[in-house]
Amino acid sequence: MQITHELTDKGIGLLKGKNIAFVASLMRDGSPQITPVWIDYDGHFILINTAEGRVKQKNFQRDPRVAISMVDPSNPYNTLSIRGNVAEQTTEGADEHIDKLANKYLGVDKYPFRAAGEKRIILKIRPEKVFHITSE
Amino acid sequence: MQITHELTDKGIGLLKGKNIAFVASLMRDGSPQITPVWIDYDGHFILINTAEGRVKQKNFQRDPRVAISMVDPSNPYNTLSIRGNVAEQTTEGADEHIDKLANKYLGVDKYPFRAAGEKRIILKIRPEKVFHITSE
Repeated sequence: MQITHELTDKGIGLLKGKNIAFVASLMRDGSPQITPVWIDYDGHFILINTAEGRVKQKNFQRDPRVAISMVDPSNPYNTLSIRGNVAEQTTEGADEHIDKLANKYLGVDKYPFRAAGEKRIILKIRPEKVFHITSE
Repeated sequence: MQITHELTDKGIGLLKGKNIAFVASLMRDGSPQITPVWIDYDGHFILINTAEGRVKQKNFQRDPRVAISMVDPSNPYNTLSIRGNVAEQTTEGADEHIDKLANKYLGVDKYPFRAAGEKRIILKIRPEKVFHITSE
């Protein structure tokens, strides 16, 4: 078993692959909350796409501290856990980005679960502590 | 899509199945931390088995607030997210319990990753808020 404290190609492969990630935010009272999310990486930030008004979007507006964890479904001994901050929330490119994620995860061209009037938001996460555990 | 706010048979099935869960604790500075874990349910508490001195064990000793999330690997629209408290930490039965989990997850009789001198601890989690999203 090996622990790497940076994002290697293998860690980036997990983020870029068709893998569900789990993201923790902080509720108003400071308690943790987790939800499963689609995930992306732009070479600098880890990207999550959410909608305005969702619990985690409001949580990160109040307190940007975040944790992410994911496991390679084909190898449970390849796990990536990250702590960091939501450095930015932006609507810019967020509609195209959710379609890109729908393509990655569902193989379709357009995100099919859009609610009427929903405003998509990209959360740009700066990874600060990386714990990538691998079996090699 | 349906959201259920209690642990139904289907939610208990997720906890009892061979599924990885993700558990969030709070670091000393209040920031969230997540790790993948094996999980169990005793009919009352959600059970996680950890070892003395691990980050999450120390975190829960300081602040028992916890979040758990998991996705059915055979159906990404069956997701269970829970918030609650670690009501108790106990070493009682913890060695037998980690062997039981090794049997569930690895199909072996004895937990194979034990470190010398490691003291196993069961975290008994009281679920307080349940968000079970299903596609039906």
